[in-house]
Amino acid sequence: MKTAIATHDNDTITIRGRNLVEELIGKVTFTEMAFLQIRGRMPTATEKAIWDMVLVTLMEHGFTPSVIATRMIAMSSPEASQSAVAAGILAVGSQFVGTTELAAELLEKLVSDPEGIEAAALRTAKEYRAAKRALPGFGHHLHKPDDPRTPRIFEVAHEAGVPGQHIEALQILSKHVDAVSGRHITINATGAIAAVLCEIETPPQLMRGLSVISRAAGLVGHIEEERAHPTGRGLWDLVEHSVEYTEQL
Amino acid sequence: MKTAIATHDNDTITIRGRNLVEELIGKVTFTEMAFLQIRGRMPTATEKAIWDMVLVTLMEHGFTPSVIATRMIAMSSPEASQSAVAAGILAVGSQFVGTTELAAELLEKLVSDPEGIEAAALRTAKEYRAAKRALPGFGHHLHKPDDPRTPRIFEVAHEAGVPGQHIEALQILSKHVDAVSGRHITINATGAIAAVLCEIETPPQLMRGLSVISRAAGLVGHIEEERAHPTGRGLWDLVEHSVEYTEQL
Amino acid sequence: MKTAIATHDNDTITIRGRNLVEELIGKVTFTEMAFLQIRGRMPTATEKAIWDMVLVTLMEHGFTPSVIATRMIAMSSPEASQSAVAAGILAVGSQFVGTTELAAELLEKLVSDPEGIEAAALRTAKEYRAAKRALPGFGHHLHKPDDPRTPRIFEVAHEAGVPGQHIEALQILSKHVDAVSGRHITINATGAIAAVLCEIETPPQLMRGLSVISRAAGLVGHIEEERAHPTGRGLWDLVEHSVEYTEQL
Amino acid sequence: MKTAIATHDNDTITIRGRNLVEELIGKVTFTEMAFLQIRGRMPTATEKAIWDMVLVTLMEHGFTPSVIATRMIAMSSPEASQSAVAAGILAVGSQFVGTTELAAELLEKLVSDPEGIEAAALRTAKEYRAAKRALPGFGHHLHKPDDPRTPRIFEVAHEAGVPGQHIEALQILSKHVDAVSGRHITINATGAIAAVLCEIETPPQLMRGLSVISRAAGLVGHIEEERAHPTGRGLWDLVEHSVEYTEQL
Repeated sequence: MKTAIATHDNDTITIRGRNLVEELIGKVTFTEMAFLQIRGRMPTATEKAIWDMVLVTLMEHGFTPSVIATRMIAMSSPEASQSAVAAGILAVGSQFVGTTELAAELLEKLVSDPEGIEAAALRTAKEYRAAKRALPGFGHHLHKPDDPRTPRIFEVAHEAGVPGQHIEALQILSKHVDAVSGRHITINATGAIAAVLCEIETPPQLMRGLSVISRAAGLVGHIEEERAHPTGRGLWDLVEHSVEYTEQL
Repeated sequence: MKTAIATHDNDTITIRGRNLVEELIGKVTFTEMAFLQIRGRMPTATEKAIWDMVLVTLMEHGFTPSVIATRMIAMSSPEASQSAVAAGILAVGSQFVGTTELAAELLEKLVSDPEGIEAAALRTAKEYRAAKRALPGFGHHLHKPDDPRTPRIFEVAHEAGVPGQHIEALQILSKHVDAVSGRHITINATGAIAAVLCEIETPPQLMRGLSVISRAAGLVGHIEEERAHPTGRGLWDLVEHSVEYTEQL
Repeated sequence: MKTAIATHDNDTITIRGRNLVEELIGKVTFTEMAFLQIRGRMPTATEKAIWDMVLVTLMEHGFTPSVIATRMIAMSSPEASQSAVAAGILAVGSQFVGTTELAAELLEKLVSDPEGIEAAALRTAKEYRAAKRALPGFGHHLHKPDDPRTPRIFEVAHEAGVPGQHIEALQILSKHVDAVSGRHITINATGAIAAVLCEIETPPQLMRGLSVISRAAGLVGHIEEERAHPTGRGLWDLVEHSVEYTEQL
Repeated sequence: MKTAIATHDNDTITIRGRNLVEELIGKVTFTEMAFLQIRGRMPTATEKAIWDMVLVTLMEHGFTPSVIATRMIAMSSPEASQSAVAAGILAVGSQFVGTTELAAELLEKLVSDPEGIEAAALRTAKEYRAAKRALPGFGHHLHKPDDPRTPRIFEVAHEAGVPGQHIEALQILSKHVDAVSGRHITINATGAIAAVLCEIETPPQLMRGLSVISRAAGLVGHIEEERAHPTGRGLWDLVEHSVEYTEQL
C-alpha cells in the first residue's frame, strides 16, 4: 500500500513532496494548497483562478435542502457542529451537483466527436428533445430568461486564459438547443462550471469534491447563524403544521 | 425567521449584502469568500493571511483516523464520494480538534486574568501539573522536542500584523509549564493555531468549523488517490488479521 | 488488539460465542440478536421485553428535525438512501435524546443516595427549582397534563418483571417536583424510558445507541414514503418563503 | 404535503393508524413495529420470520470497512456515538450491499421471463460468463465451496411458508452457473437474502434500508466494545506503518 500525499518524521512534514513548514505555511493560499493536495502539483495561475471562481460560486444558495438538513442537525446536536456539516454535505448527490458531472461528460463527448462539435451538438439537442429529457447544464427554475452567473463565469475563465474549447462547445450546444426547442433555455451555473472545469482538464469525479469543499464553508456560515439566531424550532413547527396526516397515501 | 446570509431574485444573487456576480465571482478568493460567508464581512489583510495559514496547516496529516474512515467509505460507496468526506469529517470531535477550542478558552482566560498573564500562567501550569492533566495545546507524541509548525505559525502571524497578546500568553504559559514540569514540553500546532485565531477574535466554536473546511479538502485528495490507487482492501485485510478474537474481554 | 464480538473461518461464523447458522438464524428475533451483539449474552425474558418496548416507543415521532434532515437528503441523493438515514441519525444528540442519559444518571444518583430516595428526591427537586433548570425526564410541550406513554411504559415494565426501584425513584421525584413547583409536571417518555432501562442495568451511554437503532428503522419508513409520495420540494419551497432576508441580524 | 406515517394530538399518538400506547407499546416486537412503520401494515407470520432472519443475518461481519470507519470515529468523537454509527452506515453502498438489490432485480427478471425460468437462467449464466462479469449473489472470497448461511436461509424461509419461486429460480440459476463455469460457485448469503426478500415481495430499494437497520445494531456493539476495550489507536498505528510514502504513484 502506497501513498503520494504525505509523510512525516520527527522534524519534517512533507505534503506532495513539499516541506509544509518551509514551503507552504504562510506562502500559499487555501486554494493553492487544496489544488496541491488533490491534483498533486501546484496550480498554474489559470487553474488557481478557475478553482477560486468555482469555489466562490458554489458556496451559498440560500435555504436549500442541504442547508435545511444542516440546520436541523445543528439545533439537535449543537455540541457537534461537524455533524451538521456532514449532514448537509450528504445532499451533494445526483439531483443537484451530479448534473455537473453529467454536463462535463456531455461536453467531453462533444469536443471529441469525430463529426465535429457543430454536428454533434445539433444531434445531441435533437436526441434530448426527442426523448423529452432534461439536458444537463440547461434550464433554471428561477433565473429566466438567463442565469446571471453564466456569462460572468465564462468572462472570468477567458480572462484567466483558458483554451476555450469546452465553453465554445457549450455555447454551440446552447444555440442548437434554442433552435430545436423553439425558445431560449438558459445555460445554468452548473453547466458553466462544468465547462470551465473541463477547460482545465478536471476529471468529472472531482467536480463533486469541489462542491463538497465549497459547501462545507457555506454550511459553517449557516451553523454559526443558527447558533446565534436560531431558525430551527420555527422551521420544525412550520413543517409539522404543513404536512397533513392521512390514513392512506 | 430571519437570515442575513443570502437572498436572490430573478436577476440577482446577494450574499452578505454583496452582488455575487458583480462583486464576488472572479474578484475574491475562496478564503475571502468563506470569511465573508461565516463572519459576515470581508476580511482584513491580517485576517485573510491568518485564515489561509490555518486552513493550509490543518489540511493534511497522513493516514489519521479521519482519513482511514474516509477511505473505508470511499471503497464501499465509490459512487457517493460526498459520503466518504462526511464520514471523515465526523472525526473532527473532542479528541483531536476539540483541543483547539479548549486551548483558545484557556488563552482567553489568561489574557483577561485580573492578576495578569504571568501570575495566571504560573497558577495554570501548577494546577494542571498537580491534577496530572494534559494541558490543551501542549505536547506531541511525535514532534519532540519541538513541533516544527509552531514557530512558523507565530512568525507568519506576526508578519500579518496581529496584536500578539494571545501568542505571548501562550509563550509565557510555555515558560512556566517547562519550569513546573522540569522538562521542555512543546507548544503543538493545535495550541499555536488556537493562539493566532484568538488574535483575530475568532469565537472558539468557529475553530471546529475551520478544521472541517480544511479537512474536507484534505479528504477529497485521499478519495481521489483511493480511487486511482486503492489501499482499502489492503487495509481491511491488515486490520482483520491483526485483531484477535477472544471469548471474553 | 482483541475483540469478543465475532470471528469466522471457512465453514463457521461465530458471534458472541454462538454459531450464527446453527444457533441464531431462524432461532432468535432481531431484538435478541441486537442484545446479544451489544451486551454480549442472550437477554432474559425481562430484558427482551424492555428492549422491544423501548425500541417500539422511540421509532417514530412525526416530522421531527431528524426526519426533516433525512427527507432533505433523500430528495437530494435518492440513489444513496444510507446517506439519508445517516443524516437523520446525526440528530440523536444532546437536545433530544441526550436527556435520556441525563435522566438515567439522575436516577442512579437517587437510588444510591446515602440519605435515601425520599430525601434525595426532595433535595433534587428543590435544587433544580432554585436554579430554574429543566429537570431531565420531566415536562412535555404537547402532552399536558400527562404524557400518555409514561404509565404504559411503567405498566409493561412491571409486567415484564423489573425490580422497580428506579421507576419508584422517578415517581417519588415526580411527587416532590409537583409539590415544589406548585403544579403538575408530567414525567415524559424520555424519563420513563431512562427509568426502565436503568431497571435492567443499562449503562447510560448505551441508551443513545438504542435510540439510533430504533430511529434508523423509523427513518427508513420516511425515506420510502418520500420516494413514493415526495414532500421534499414542497418543504423546501415552504422554508425558502418563510425565512426573511435582512441586512443585519 | 401528506404523510400516512404518524400523527398526534394532546392525548394520542397514532402510527400507521394504530394507537401507539394502546396497540403497540408492550404488544409488538421491534421487528413487527419496523415492518409496520416501513410497509404500512402489520406483517404476516411469514413476513415477520423473514425480516427477523434477514436482520439477524446481516448484523455482524467482523472488522469490515464499515466497522473500521465506525471505530475510527468512535475513538475521535467518543462524545457523539451517533456519529460513529452514521459513519459506518455510509459504507452500505454499491460494493457490498448494493449487490442484494442487483441480485433481486435479476431474480425478478428470471421469474417473469416469457421463455420460462430454466431457459432464462441458462441464458443469463451464459451471458455473464461471456462478459466475464461477476454474477450478483454468487461467489464468496472466504466461504468455499459453500457459504454456510445460504442453505439455512432457504430452510428457514420454507419453514416460514414462502411460495418458493424466487428461491427456486436462484437454485436453477446456480445449476446453470456451475455447468457453464465448469466448477461450483456458491450462492452467497447476499443472493440468498435477495431471494427470500423477493419471496415476500420486498421492493429492491428497501433491501438497503433493512441492511442499514441491522448494521446500526451491529455498529452499536462495536462502539461499546471500542469504548471499553479500545482498538483504535492500535489500528491507527498499524495503518500508518503499513502505508508507504512515495514521491509518485
